[in-house]
Formats: sequence, C-alpha cells, structure tokens
Amino acid sequence: RRCLSAVGRFAEEKVGRIAREDPRRVAHSFKVGLALTLVSVLYYVTPLFNGFGGSAMWAVLTVVIVMEFTVGATLSKGVNRALATLVASSLAIGAHKGASLIVSSENTESILLIVFIFFVASAATFSRFIPEIKARYDYGVGIFILTFSLVAVSSYRVEELMPLALQRTSTIFVGVAICLCTTVLVFPVWAGDDLHKLAASNLDKLADFLEGMETECFGENARSGNLEGKDFHDAYKSILSSKDKEDSLCTLAKWEPIHRKFGFRYPWSQYQNLGTLCRQCASTMEALASYVAILRKYQYPEANPQLYMKVQKTCSQMSLHSARTLRELSSAVRSMTTPSAMNKDLSAAMKYANGCRNELLQDSALLQLSDMVTQINEITESVNNLARLARFKNQEKARNDVVINVRNQ
Amino acid sequence: RRCLSAVGRFAEEKVGRIAREDPRRVAHSFKVGLALTLVSVLYYVTPLFNGFGGSAMWAVLTVVIVMEFTVGATLSKGVNRALATLVASSLAIGAHKGASLIVSSENTESILLIVFIFFVASAATFSRFIPEIKARYDYGVGIFILTFSLVAVSSYRVEELMPLALQRTSTIFVGVAICLCTTVLVFPVWAGDDLHKLAASNLDKLADFLEGMETECFGENARSGNLEGKDFHDAYKSILSSKDKEDSLCTLAKWEPIHRKFGFRYPWSQYQNLGTLCRQCASTMEALASYVAILRKYQYPEANPQLYMKVQKTCSQMSLHSARTLRELSSAVRSMTTPSAMNKDLSAAMKYANGCRNELLQDSALLQLSDMVTQINEITESVNNLARLARFKNQEKARNDVVINVRNQ
Repeated sequence: RRCLSAVGRFAEEKVGRIAREDPRRVAHSFKVGLALTLVSVLYYVTPLFNGFGGSAMWAVLTVVIVMEFTVGATLSKGVNRALATLVASSLAIGAHKGASLIVSSENTESILLIVFIFFVASAATFSRFIPEIKARYDYGVGIFILTFSLVAVSSYRVEELMPLALQRTSTIFVGVAICLCTTVLVFPVWAGDDLHKLAASNLDKLADFLEGMETECFGENARSGNLEGKDFHDAYKSILSSKDKEDSLCTLAKWEPIHRKFGFRYPWSQYQNLGTLCRQCASTMEALASYVAILRKYQYPEANPQLYMKVQKTCSQMSLHSARTLRELSSAVRSMTTPSAMNKDLSAAMKYANGCRNELLQDSALLQLSDMVTQINEITESVNNLARLARFKNQEKARNDVVINVRNQ
Repeated sequence: RRCLSAVGRFAEEKVGRIAREDPRRVAHSFKVGLALTLVSVLYYVTPLFNGFGGSAMWAVLTVVIVMEFTVGATLSKGVNRALATLVASSLAIGAHKGASLIVSSENTESILLIVFIFFVASAATFSRFIPEIKARYDYGVGIFILTFSLVAVSSYRVEELMPLALQRTSTIFVGVAICLCTTVLVFPVWAGDDLHKLAASNLDKLADFLEGMETECFGENARSGNLEGKDFHDAYKSILSSKDKEDSLCTLAKWEPIHRKFGFRYPWSQYQNLGTLCRQCASTMEALASYVAILRKYQYPEANPQLYMKVQKTCSQMSLHSARTLRELSSAVRSMTTPSAMNKDLSAAMKYANGCRNELLQDSALLQLSDMVTQINEITESVNNLARLARFKNQEKARNDVVINVRNQ
C-alpha cells in the first residue's frame, strides 16, 4: 500500500507540474471533451441525425482526430480533411463510373479498380516524401488515400454510391464545424500568439546570458566559480533548439484568421528570420561560454595584468550595452511598438567593439563578444523590419495614447 | 504550353532527386499500394469477408494509417492500435452495462454515458501532454478516445453491441497483420539499421572536419581563403541537429524484433549516449570554426612568428591524430568489431594536448583543439562500451575468420 501511495504521489506531482507549466493544456483537454459531448448529443437527439444514418460515426471520428491544441492546427487539419474527402470521393466515383463504362463484366471491373487503388495509393504515398507537401498537406494526403480506397472498395458492394458519399462528406463537415467552433470560441490558443511570445522571450534570454556573463566573468565583482548550473548559463541552449518549434508555429500561424493584434497578411515569416539571427548569436554565446569554462578549468595565471584589466573592462562594457539593446528590442516586440531609430546602447557597444581592434587577437572572449555585437546589430535591423512590415505602433504615438488615457480617467 | 513543360520538368527533377536520395522511399510507396491491394482483394473475395460485413472498411482504414516507413514504426502503431481498441471497447461496453444497471430510464442512461465520454476524453487528452506517454503511446491514446466514444455512442442505437465490437476488433487485427507482413517481408526498412549507420556517419563527419581543418588551416600548405562553402566546413552542422532523429529512431528500434546483426536486448540507448558526445564535440568544432572565420576576416598580422609556427604544428598534429582515431572508431562501428584496446593515435593526440599547456592561453584554437581531444577520448570510451554491451566481434577473431574463409575457398 505504501508503494501504491508513493506512485500516486509521484503521478500527482507530475500531472500538477504539467498543468501548472501551461494551464491551457487543462483547458484544451476539457475542450476535446466538450466537442465530443456536442457530437454525441447530436447523435442522441434523434431527429437531427436521422438523415445521417450509419455515417454519424464519421463525425465522432473527425472530432477526435481534428481537435488540436492551437486554432491554426485545428483549422489546417479540418480544411485538409474536408477538401481531401471531397476530392478523393469524386475521383473514386469517377474511377468507378469510368471502369464500368470500359468493361462490362463485374469481375473485370473489380480487377481494374484494384489496379487503380494500387497506383493511386503508391503515387500519393510517394508525394508525402516531398518536403513542401509533408509540411502542409501530409494529413490531407493520408485522408485522400483513405477515402479513395474506401469509396473505390465500397463501390463493388454498395448499389447507391452517391448518397453514401454525400452523407459521409456532410457528417465530416459537421464534425469539422464543431471542432472549429469549440476551438475558436472556448479559450482559443493561437499559434501566432505563441510565435510572437517565443520571439520576445528569445531576445530576453540572449540578454539574460550577457548580463550574467557581465556580473560573473567581466564585472568588478567577478568570481571565479563554476558557471555550469547557473541559470543564465543555459539560457542560450533552448534558443539553439527552437528552430523546429518556430517553423511549425509559423506554418500554423499562417492558417489562422485575423485575431487580436495580428491583422491580415501579417508578416509571420519575419519571425523565422529573426529566429535564425538569434540562433546564430546563441551559438556564438555557446562558443564564448565553452571558452570561459575551459579557462576556468585550467586556472591559468595572468601573463599581463594590465592588458587583462583593459580586456575585462571592454568585455564588461560590451556585454552591458548589448544586453540593454536586446532588452529594449524584446520589450518593443512584446508591446508591438516600433523601437527607437537610434539606439544609444547599440552605438556604445559598437564603439567599444571597434575600439579594441588591436587587442582582439590577444583574447578570444573579446573577439567573440565583438562578433556578437555585429550579430546584435543584425538582430536590431531584423526587429525594425518586423516593426515596419507588421505596422507596429509608433513609440511617440503610443506614449501620447497613454497620456490621453490617463487624462481621460 | 512552354510554361507547363517547365513545371513538368521541375517536378520530374524534384521527384527524381527525392527518389535517388533514398530509393527505399519508392519501395515504401509501392508497399503501401500492395498492402491496400491485399485488403481490397480480401474484400472482393466474397466468402472471406462475409463474416465481417460492414466492418470491412475498418481493415482498409487500419492499413492506410498503420503503414509506416520503418518496421519499428509500423509495429508500434499496429500494437498501439490493436491494444487501444481492445481496452477502449471493453471499457465502453462495461460503462454501458454499468449505466444500464444503475438507472432504468433510457434517457438518463444516455445522459450518464455522455458524462462518461466527457470525462474519459478529457483525462485521456490530458495524458497526451505527459512526455513519456507522448513519446510512445500518443497514437494509442488517440485510438482509445476514438473507440471509447464510438462504442459508447453506438450503444444507444445498436441492440447487439458485443458482436459489432468483436467484428470491428477482428478486422482491425486483420489490417494490422497485413501491414506487418508487407512491411517485414517486402524490402524491410529497419529503424535500428538507420540508427547504427547514423552513429557511424556522425563519427566520419567529425573526422572529415578535422582533416579539412588540418589541410586548410594548420597544415604546411594552408591557404588563407574563405572556409564557408567548403564541404568539410558544414560537416558538423547536421550532427548538431541530429538529436530528434536519433531519439525517434531509438524509440522505434526498441520495438523491432531481432534482425540481422541486432540481437535480443540490443543496447540501443548506447547510441544516444554516443550521439550526445558527438554533438558536444561538434559544438566545440563550431566554436573553433567561428574563431578561425573571425581571424581570417580581420586578417591580423602575426605578433610572434616563432610561437605561431609552434602553435600551428601542434594544432596540425592534434587534428591529424584525432581524425585518425575517429576514422578507426567509425569503421569499427560499421563492421561491428571491437576497436583495438590501445589506440596509438589517441595517445599521440593526448600527448600533444598535454604538451602545450603553456601555450594554451595564447591561442584559442589550441585551447579548443585540446578540449576536443578530451571529448574524443570520451567518445572512444563510449564506443568501447557499445562494443562490449552489443558483443561486437573481436578484431583478432574477425581477422582469423577472414583467413579461414580465404583458405576454404
């Protein structure tokens, strides 16, 4: 019994942690329950479903499979499913009609249909290996193969193919409609929102790292302890592995309708450009961190204390100003305001980077930091691009708005 | 018409490239076609399917969804589907029986069932967020929700629930059996094979990089051109992003039965350890490459030519011996023979790394290379571990086998 209660406690903690990490997960779970309940109610309320007959189960099937975490994913799956079903059933009915025109015997017709199924399924399966199709229509192609085979196979047994196909297609549309309503109306989770927040938090993490390096390594109170295990030290790691998540969020965000601050033709791909630059910067940070770690492991004596002091001071200033630049960018992205055109911190960091040309070869940390300043300059340009294309609010105007709001209250 | 033919040529090239990159993709496409044809034939041959009635479509559905590229993926999906269907339909029938025992009115019973569906579906959906379940049983949980809702919903309309559930479950088993036969008997693609080859090719890529650095940067004929765009220069990049692929291959490989050289309880997780070490080494390489790139961009004059010569020579020797060590390891993994216990190249590289302690601080490339030698030492230990746990052939014995084979011929 004691063992059981230990397992119970462990599961409780785990479930609690997963729910606390992102409470939207709990909401999503109940939303799936809700959508299924709605379909079941439709099924139980007899008059509504009499028309659908045995095909009603297709609505249940659709709801279970199409309900996804974000609005974009649900919409993309729903549209994929509905379109693929329509196209595949028309094609299959066409194939059936064609086959019965060419040959008269029922046996030869079924052989012809089986040959059709073989080639259509093979070709469609192969198309799933094409990257563009895999990224956007993988699920649709799967449903296409499924529906085509089902309808073609049934055509041999079922006399009236058209009504059956129509019935199934319409139940699938009902299922997709229920999913979309639930997902948009009850606590919607937007992939675009997540992508936007991911961009801002990546910028913050880069700033965290630089601030941490400043206090721990270059600053006046720098200690020589181990850096591993410090919070800021692993900040860049999650950025390095964020590419897949970013790409899939971007694909899904493009499916989503206009919502909140994100208008029509919002430039989602800009977030991918910004993400690439952040990852480059994070990989320079990794190089810097590994260099510092090696230095501390072997604890080398200083050969030239005067040079060392100068290098440390330049490193410290570059880190500080770069971190401030990144913080300003992240808060600009978060509040969707255009960052100020002339960033004082960025120019200060660049001045330090250009001023230490002669010492660069002497110290790898200096070299990497000055490279980082160049990268942060590129990041700044990318955020400016995003602000222009996405029509972020003007900072002056935003401030005036606040003033007006305050006065009005 | 010209435009059309251009599109046609583009598609042809693209399809041709995808097929040539991995011809198993073509085989897989035809295998899916074959499996579907087998199911359709089963359906057409009347006596066989009379017993299954309208449930025959579940076999088609199963084949389309369960057929995956590797044996492991097909097996894992098939087992997930079969077990989830069994468990969910038993549970749903139990819920139906229980509900009809508690309440007598049909209406109250259906309300009770809907409440069941809501809570079971919500709980099951939440369980998909638990990482362990997501990695191995995500598909099974989906099928569980689907089957439970379908059976519970149908229980209101269908009088004889048990025969229907049994019929569906048995058609699903037939579908899974057809998938497994096709995937194992016709050109099987083993995830374990792919994982094994990935490990060997990662070791080769690390060696490629070091050899390239030796000729281009540290060797006697080193040129000062741009490194970007060189083949070897990007070798480490694919290693850095190989984690997801490796993890999923490892999960799938564990599902696969004994095949070819991979016996019972083969230590698949060792490949993950080896992969982690290779990625660490690759990220040190990235740091080294970015350092060299910065150096070349600014083209600094040499302050101390004598020291420079010494550093270059040590770097060259470390790269050469490390590359040779890695080549030996990769060929050992490829041929599944135990690598020789004392690796001369590794000890040579370590001697150079230890011998340059005093110059380390002066040159970041030297520092990073000597760190890399330590990492390659760890990689060697990891390969030795793998060889021991997987019972690789003994090198001496392997050589004798060859001799005997030659004599016998």
